[in-house]
Amino acid sequence: MTSPAFDYAPLLPPGLPQPAVRWTGLAKYSFVGGNNDPEQVPVDGLIEAVNAVLKREGRTLATYGLASGPQGYRPLREFLSAKLKRDAGITATADDIMIVSGSLQALDLVNQTLLSRGDTVIVEQETYQGALNRLTRLGVSAIGVPLDGEGMRLDVLASTLADLKARGIRPKYIYTIPTVQNPTGTILPESRRAEMLKLSLQYGVPIFEDDCYADLIWDGKRPPAIHAMAKNGGVIHIGSFSKSIAPALRVGFIVAPWEMMSRMLALKTDAGSGALEQMVLAEYCAPHFTTHVPKLTRGLRRKLDTLMEALNEQFGTAAEFADPKGGIFLWVKLPDNVDTLKLYQAALKAGVAINPGPEWSTNKGHSGSRLRLCFASPSEQQIREGVAVLADVCRKEFGVPVRIANVEKRA
Amino acid sequence: MTSPAFDYAPLLPPGLPQPAVRWTGLAKYSFVGGNNDPEQVPVDGLIEAVNAVLKREGRTLATYGLASGPQGYRPLREFLSAKLKRDAGITATADDIMIVSGSLQALDLVNQTLLSRGDTVIVEQETYQGALNRLTRLGVSAIGVPLDGEGMRLDVLASTLADLKARGIRPKYIYTIPTVQNPTGTILPESRRAEMLKLSLQYGVPIFEDDCYADLIWDGKRPPAIHAMAKNGGVIHIGSFSKSIAPALRVGFIVAPWEMMSRMLALKTDAGSGALEQMVLAEYCAPHFTTHVPKLTRGLRRKLDTLMEALNEQFGTAAEFADPKGGIFLWVKLPDNVDTLKLYQAALKAGVAINPGPEWSTNKGHSGSRLRLCFASPSEQQIREGVAVLADVCRKEFGVPVRIANVEKRA
Repeated sequence: MTSPAFDYAPLLPPGLPQPAVRWTGLAKYSFVGGNNDPEQVPVDGLIEAVNAVLKREGRTLATYGLASGPQGYRPLREFLSAKLKRDAGITATADDIMIVSGSLQALDLVNQTLLSRGDTVIVEQETYQGALNRLTRLGVSAIGVPLDGEGMRLDVLASTLADLKARGIRPKYIYTIPTVQNPTGTILPESRRAEMLKLSLQYGVPIFEDDCYADLIWDGKRPPAIHAMAKNGGVIHIGSFSKSIAPALRVGFIVAPWEMMSRMLALKTDAGSGALEQMVLAEYCAPHFTTHVPKLTRGLRRKLDTLMEALNEQFGTAAEFADPKGGIFLWVKLPDNVDTLKLYQAALKAGVAINPGPEWSTNKGHSGSRLRLCFASPSEQQIREGVAVLADVCRKEFGVPVRIANVEKRA
Repeated sequence: MTSPAFDYAPLLPPGLPQPAVRWTGLAKYSFVGGNNDPEQVPVDGLIEAVNAVLKREGRTLATYGLASGPQGYRPLREFLSAKLKRDAGITATADDIMIVSGSLQALDLVNQTLLSRGDTVIVEQETYQGALNRLTRLGVSAIGVPLDGEGMRLDVLASTLADLKARGIRPKYIYTIPTVQNPTGTILPESRRAEMLKLSLQYGVPIFEDDCYADLIWDGKRPPAIHAMAKNGGVIHIGSFSKSIAPALRVGFIVAPWEMMSRMLALKTDAGSGALEQMVLAEYCAPHFTTHVPKLTRGLRRKLDTLMEALNEQFGTAAEFADPKGGIFLWVKLPDNVDTLKLYQAALKAGVAINPGPEWSTNKGHSGSRLRLCFASPSEQQIREGVAVLADVCRKEFGVPVRIANVEKRA
């Protein structure tokens, strides 16, 4: 550039998010993000699938949407129709399903269809950061309902809805991750699901069910989806292949009644989600999904065991957590004096990336000493080493954990 | 559903677009959309590429963004860096390039970064419908500058900018498709590009250069990109693999200075664009792009010849058009009494899909008797049959074409 740089600043509208900083690579010990186990990507199966489907249908790539229409590649929707019935009890035809570019696009489409600035929604008090950030950017108020070991507390949901109604506020939806909740890992029992549906009907507030992690349950047993239990179309259900196959394939889906689907289709102006990824997933999953997933979850369970062992060893009683029944993350409570936002900064400098609790919660007080650790991506050795470094950093910054278990062990 | 259906209507915010109607398949004779020639999808090459890249790097699919960071798969950005230099004269490193999910996401990101409701932008009077629709939805005023046989008229651009300035309005950008303009097929000469840059500097209005069709020029010769001629970073350049490889692969890109890139990255909250498609494109294009594209354009040129012959045969002098130097569409003028919005409706009933001019123009009067015909997707036989059906419909509805050339031929 030989002239003064063009100045875009006067052209930027108010309210933009902070600019990104230059990407400098992943942390050495990365316990963040929905990244999965590289050893468990079914590479051979995907290669076989892509060869078969491209040989048979490669020419259809010349047409946007492969001539399957704007809801996405029909064979993938047909696979999902069967899978959702089998695993989640959901009755949905291919026409009730829309393929999207990851469940994040599902969040965007549901939000764009229902939300305006100033609206209110109900969420679990600890919930997915990507959902919370979207609501903040949209200027929507997210009311958090606390969780216990069985997921969202329905007594508090009931009182929250009653309280909002008394104030003349009708929330636009109840957003829930009922099956392997993010970040707490809880599974909402069927009775609570029924109770949530009752409240949804009573107050005319739809349920937005995010089932992204539901495939990753150790024993494969799960309650029916809330969508499956609803009788009136008042549940919008979303899911993803990111956790069950591979996150870099950006493929998720929405199950919704036509009244909502037709609105979301009008807002999905991207000329379709990536077709090759849809084709490969349909071809691979139809024969292999049910054998791949248990193999994947056995590996994840081993990594979780390693993580819990490492935490016990390095943090002793200073780290409290429940043993989740599935998923890729562990929600950990440290002593009250630990500020995980500060721990996050210090740990990152030492090469360890963690998710500080306040970024995953509407209750900054409750979550201030909590953190989320994702265990699918690092190797078992990286998990052990990373937790050791994290304990060192935490000890230097906050004086806990006091007891150094591994030194005692050496004695 | 055994209960009354949940009623979402009271929850919908104002200003939503009309709901979609159920998809009923492609028209028998489809002259719409950026669909390409199915015979020209390089299926064997893509299969070879996907096998190689998945064998080598398939495990990286376990990580969002393949650990290439949020700007997309690095080898694809490196291919683009070399390709843009070679073909368009653009100097851009991999760090100056962001991969996006089709050029539509590029439009969205640039718009989100620069536009607020009530803003003004300058566009070519006839331009891409997807760009116009986005501006309408954003509540942005699009001022159309008329085109002639060499693209945007720079005298009118100059007077438009002066006029807006006199009214205290600084447009947010000048959106142009300079190289195979959509829908007119014109190519802006280098001298006009230089003039546009001068005006951009003078008025402090950046240029938004959409080069989506620039690969599809019959003789492969093109002026340098406006981005290549700029010295100050005042041009945002976007492109796509939709036209050169396959539209169902949703992969486009943005070249922009970091000041804009960092803003767009902050708004790209989709956890990355589809990785498999990026990987396959990088692997295929590096060795094959320069041999594939001339083969593709030769086929497109043949189809264009067929279309122009069919129009001459069926419409005679009633259909006026220039012979474009590249692309996948022909911009056709019918007699003034033909209303192409009405023709569109009638033709669709007869199985022929066309793009009515007013949907591709800011000047409904000028475009009312014009239409866009895309020729890449239908076969040569379909082109001939479809144009014959279109002529029949047009004759029934509007009394033109009067002369029936093919009947004369039979005599």
